[in-house]
Amino acid sequence: MLGVTILGNNSALPAFDRHPTAQVVTLDDQLFLVDCGEGTQMQLARYKIRWGRINHIFISHLHGDHYFGLPGFLNSMGLLNREHDLHLYAPAPVKQILDLQFAAAGTKLPFILHFHPLETECCLVKTDRWQVSCFAVKHRIPCYGFKFEQVKPPRRLNPERAVQHEVPASFYDRLKWGEDYTNKKGELIKNDWVTDPAPKPKSYAYSADTIYDEELVDKIKGVDLLYHETTYLKELNERAASRFHATTVQAAAIAQKAKVGRLLIGHFSSKYDKLDLFEEEAKEVFPNTSLAIEGVTYKV
Amino acid sequence: MLGVTILGNNSALPAFDRHPTAQVVTLDDQLFLVDCGEGTQMQLARYKIRWGRINHIFISHLHGDHYFGLPGFLNSMGLLNREHDLHLYAPAPVKQILDLQFAAAGTKLPFILHFHPLETECCLVKTDRWQVSCFAVKHRIPCYGFKFEQVKPPRRLNPERAVQHEVPASFYDRLKWGEDYTNKKGELIKNDWVTDPAPKPKSYAYSADTIYDEELVDKIKGVDLLYHETTYLKELNERAASRFHATTVQAAAIAQKAKVGRLLIGHFSSKYDKLDLFEEEAKEVFPNTSLAIEGVTYKV
Repeated sequence: MLGVTILGNNSALPAFDRHPTAQVVTLDDQLFLVDCGEGTQMQLARYKIRWGRINHIFISHLHGDHYFGLPGFLNSMGLLNREHDLHLYAPAPVKQILDLQFAAAGTKLPFILHFHPLETECCLVKTDRWQVSCFAVKHRIPCYGFKFEQVKPPRRLNPERAVQHEVPASFYDRLKWGEDYTNKKGELIKNDWVTDPAPKPKSYAYSADTIYDEELVDKIKGVDLLYHETTYLKELNERAASRFHATTVQAAAIAQKAKVGRLLIGHFSSKYDKLDLFEEEAKEVFPNTSLAIEGVTYKV
Repeated sequence: MLGVTILGNNSALPAFDRHPTAQVVTLDDQLFLVDCGEGTQMQLARYKIRWGRINHIFISHLHGDHYFGLPGFLNSMGLLNREHDLHLYAPAPVKQILDLQFAAAGTKLPFILHFHPLETECCLVKTDRWQVSCFAVKHRIPCYGFKFEQVKPPRRLNPERAVQHEVPASFYDRLKWGEDYTNKKGELIKNDWVTDPAPKPKSYAYSADTIYDEELVDKIKGVDLLYHETTYLKELNERAASRFHATTVQAAAIAQKAKVGRLLIGHFSSKYDKLDLFEEEAKEVFPNTSLAIEGVTYKV
């Protein structure tokens, strides 16, 4: 399963009950937090996301609307007595800022926070099931996008055959990951008797805040789902370029050139109270486009 | 006029749509922001407070629930092209934290931010009409309360007599501040012909996060309105003391000993979904007590 839950779809200035950028990526049994604008902890609570399951946080860049919610979120996890490690991938200055804030408050987090500075395009974390890598995008300050990929998706369980072979339901999760089952009589139930091959690995790319940039195309080629910012409607393409942001048709052009499966657009300027024109303009270029709406999970 | 508008009435962990600490003090034509927990800029928007009129911000201490909304609020004022000076009174480390954050974002605020570190009990700002001073309170880390006082309240306009003497309405505000009026014929209309003496100067004290501490009594003696924290109900007085917080009956005892006019209680722990017991317990000791409810303005 790959899903993206939007917690904030607005650009710098919160407006119309739209919040600064944050989203949760669900990849099988993993939850990843991507950017953490002010109010993210309240949005996580509002949409009942089990934040104790978030073990990796990715911060694209240090404009406040992408990370001012981070110290509060970490602090609250501490107050809730989180004990398991947390990994934070962010531009280097975040470490110094957090250290100062925690020292001033006399805070000692009850869990280990591993800080990984973003310095170059690379694979950030890889397991035998999934991986996350980062790629540079063009913005006013150093900024990274993130690509989430299944390495080995779970096999499809065939419940009928699993029941027939008397595999207990408690073993189903291990079946999905390819294990054979040995029953109490010592008989081996081969995995492929009760599961079907896994589907094609799924992928999602979040391209953060970026000017229209065709160099992005190769970095996100063929992903199932692409989130591309569209701060402005197409008529403001000069303003967009001057601020290193993109428009609807530019996001859609990138999606088209990169042959992605589906496009998700967000980071709307607070100039706009209504969003329908964003969808309309982007769909003219790339029909499989959706608006990123807060509280909605977009599944692949 | 003296009023306190509550933007956040909860303690560290936001819960039940209650927010971390922030409040706006209105003193005649001045708006002051007191503490600035995460989400304060959204709360200001929610309650339609004209934040361009805020020229002074006071931060009591550096637990995150009292200032994590500050960088976002300053940033948003910049995006809204604020041009007039802003004064920030806060513990010294705030300066370094903000400098790092603005440098990382490449942000240059379009207004001058005057930083005044809180270092000792003193008068922070004084005009001929009002003054704000700070006083030390006992908390786990250095923490200050703030006292807002009218120095010279406006005189009471007598509209009937003002009309009788043909003073134009555009001059009424100057009448309230004691000026005489000279009409077109050169005749002097003496101020006390058209106004009545000012009422007694009003005062408000915000005692921030504090353990039960009778040394506070002298610092806030006789204020018209006192905000005192009540993180816990009375049965948890040991927990309160161990965390340098106070309970309902402790807040009420301080109000009683200091002979204040009215008590406002807040900073409720996220343990409690309902607040009625807070009011009940405090009123048993100090009847003129109100719960600090978000969005409500408490006037003196």
